[in-house]
Amino acid sequence: MAADKFNMYGLIAKKRDGGLLQAEEIRFWLRGMLDGSIPDYQTAAMLMAIFWRGLTEAETFALTEEIVASGERLDLSGIDGVCADKHSTGGVGDKTTLIAMPLAAACGLKIAKMSGRSLGKTGGTADKLASVPGFRLELPEPALLAQVAEIGLAVVAQTKNLTPADKRLYALRDMTATVDSLPLIAASVMSKKIAAGAGVIVLDVKFGSGAFMPDAASAAELARLMVKLGRSAGRRVEAVISSMAAPLGAAVGNALEVAECADILQNKPDLAVSADLQRLAVVLAGEMLYLGGLAECRRDGWQQAEAALQDGRGWQKLLAFLQAQGGDTESLQAGELVQAKHVVPVLAAKNGYLSAADAAQVAEIVQRLGAGRERVEDEIDYQVGVRMIKPAGAQVVAGERLAEVYASDLAQAEAAKKDLQRVLQVLPEPPQLEPLIWGLVDERGNVVPWAEVK
Amino acid sequence: MAADKFNMYGLIAKKRDGGLLQAEEIRFWLRGMLDGSIPDYQTAAMLMAIFWRGLTEAETFALTEEIVASGERLDLSGIDGVCADKHSTGGVGDKTTLIAMPLAAACGLKIAKMSGRSLGKTGGTADKLASVPGFRLELPEPALLAQVAEIGLAVVAQTKNLTPADKRLYALRDMTATVDSLPLIAASVMSKKIAAGAGVIVLDVKFGSGAFMPDAASAAELARLMVKLGRSAGRRVEAVISSMAAPLGAAVGNALEVAECADILQNKPDLAVSADLQRLAVVLAGEMLYLGGLAECRRDGWQQAEAALQDGRGWQKLLAFLQAQGGDTESLQAGELVQAKHVVPVLAAKNGYLSAADAAQVAEIVQRLGAGRERVEDEIDYQVGVRMIKPAGAQVVAGERLAEVYASDLAQAEAAKKDLQRVLQVLPEPPQLEPLIWGLVDERGNVVPWAEVK
Repeated sequence: MAADKFNMYGLIAKKRDGGLLQAEEIRFWLRGMLDGSIPDYQTAAMLMAIFWRGLTEAETFALTEEIVASGERLDLSGIDGVCADKHSTGGVGDKTTLIAMPLAAACGLKIAKMSGRSLGKTGGTADKLASVPGFRLELPEPALLAQVAEIGLAVVAQTKNLTPADKRLYALRDMTATVDSLPLIAASVMSKKIAAGAGVIVLDVKFGSGAFMPDAASAAELARLMVKLGRSAGRRVEAVISSMAAPLGAAVGNALEVAECADILQNKPDLAVSADLQRLAVVLAGEMLYLGGLAECRRDGWQQAEAALQDGRGWQKLLAFLQAQGGDTESLQAGELVQAKHVVPVLAAKNGYLSAADAAQVAEIVQRLGAGRERVEDEIDYQVGVRMIKPAGAQVVAGERLAEVYASDLAQAEAAKKDLQRVLQVLPEPPQLEPLIWGLVDERGNVVPWAEVK
Repeated sequence: MAADKFNMYGLIAKKRDGGLLQAEEIRFWLRGMLDGSIPDYQTAAMLMAIFWRGLTEAETFALTEEIVASGERLDLSGIDGVCADKHSTGGVGDKTTLIAMPLAAACGLKIAKMSGRSLGKTGGTADKLASVPGFRLELPEPALLAQVAEIGLAVVAQTKNLTPADKRLYALRDMTATVDSLPLIAASVMSKKIAAGAGVIVLDVKFGSGAFMPDAASAAELARLMVKLGRSAGRRVEAVISSMAAPLGAAVGNALEVAECADILQNKPDLAVSADLQRLAVVLAGEMLYLGGLAECRRDGWQQAEAALQDGRGWQKLLAFLQAQGGDTESLQAGELVQAKHVVPVLAAKNGYLSAADAAQVAEIVQRLGAGRERVEDEIDYQVGVRMIKPAGAQVVAGERLAEVYASDLAQAEAAKKDLQRVLQVLPEPPQLEPLIWGLVDERGNVVPWAEVK
């Protein structure tokens, strides 16, 4: 490719006018962006033009491929077995990864997960894991591969220079109000997953107040695009579409969420408030098993995952994984991981039925307690958060404990309690609750309502 | 204004979603752009969002005001008389300024014109003036004001730090394919005119193949916006809408154009090919007189300008102005300004009627001869160009001279001749010729067809 065949001005003008970018034009752009020959302001203008005009599937495929080609790839070919990965588009209290991965690994899949530090109101998977004392996210690549071969599961910070073009594009999108573009989101997510090497990828695409996509239809659209991108790169990909109207499970906050996962994997009684979370995690693990060829059908996959949960193999796998990466699991096993200074209950003000909590509002409350970060350099308080005691729809009586605030500062705890009292309404009638799992996008890109998924 | 009241990300997102920017938000943006606190990539994204969503009149007023406020202004208040200015949106062979200004000054207006080095295929007013030996575009401000007070006319390179925000915005627009935005064009032009201090501004907004705007309707839309912007800043502004389908007048090329203006101002005979140019220049000068209150009506203004042309006062004013700025007018007065090495005639291949030449094609031919610049640092050849001998529509016989190519290089001359032979077609029937002046946008923003202008 002769670099002087193209000029960035012409490419911006083409997209601005609704034209189509060719693969080699996208390559010219991304290479120039990375080597500095194309200034960031031209990339910014292109991103806004893409935000406006969109990208066709062919353009999005090409963008994804060129992002992958911009860096190294993780080579999992030396691992004996099927390598699988899982990605959630993100939500409040979304800790399914910490349950689904041990279950899938316990059933025989190999999982080498790369995890970046997420920017979110309530911390990402890496932040949740960092609440376990001693846990190391940094593993050299040979150690990563050895651990995956031996116990089937590792979660590490990025070990290689994967998808540098995505990092630069994302940094610019984040400064120029061009994040919310379906093709740019899909290319960003899928390029990272493709570069990370797994042949099987299960996506959890969320919608609702606590998610990126506002409704199920747009979530399904994003999911279809990502499934197709993965397929065009030779991966087996399906996506579960799930609601993020309310926080997932009981806990929101890093140590609290790890503790909830441990409770679920240990089959602790009285987990009505965690039932939805458990179900979604089992579904995702089952999907991974089905796509990976370790289950005959989806139902078989779900059943295998459920069995690994019931008989404690998932719990043992979680412990083995945490310990292999230096985690001291003593406090987790003793039920003492959560050590917040102040625990303040939120009580029902009257008799009635508990409303579903709004995910976005809960996320903001937890962020104000210090559980997330706005900038990469922000420090996280792993011990703070919110834990629901009663599930949405439960019949409650005045004075009964609905939830608990975990805080390092009493004034913050009291403020969070007040905020939470507004969010957790007690209604005269039982609320209409939305089902958690809305549907599935299968490998061919078909959108299937969940009731029809077999 | 507290800087932390706003953030650029939010402003980009607002415009991206079709929202309205407030004056203080635009001020925040432009100040941040100039002091470096807002990176260029954010401005680039904002410009593309504006290109997409547009700006309302109120937003465009605010942008114009803030661009003016970003720098110094030229203070003309010490000049006794009415200060007027003229601006053309640019075209091929457009030398009306060099005729209209001396006519208006000869009739009593005071004209202090700031002229930047233009980027165009065939040179701007400053380039045309530079073809006069010794002419100095650089004048210190006191000398500029003294010259305007004394002889009523000066054209200088910018003496102050006028509209720095426009310079920065234009440089970014030029790199990010966001030049062709009506509100951005209008704000750029009018901010410079407002900062340059004149109370009366006459615009010549052109449309057609050699102009920025493709058709009369879009030219009128741009003109209305510019008239309103000027009015909102307390200036008297009107716009003539004129065709740039064909080159204006006979000459295209710097010295050739100055020589044509000298011929017109001296009432040289046999100037049928310059008749349209002469008429438009008289109309623009008359408009300036009318808006400046020196004529009772537009017709009176035109008549005063025509009289100054006929009796030679315009020619004397041009000479006085050129000499005041160091110009040696001897060769101009002797009809020897044009000194091209090679003059190659373009002959009619057959009998018939001469077509109108396409302005864009002629501009490219002249650019290839070296008369314009693509980059600010390019050198211009003042002597090269093209001169039409026969006006469009004229009956011609085979072998008759239609035009002449002026070149420094014989091979270039021959190439230009061949190109011009394709552009200057001889037709079996007289061609339908479009009228040069399409209409007027009056001070209130009314669009008036030229036949109804009184």
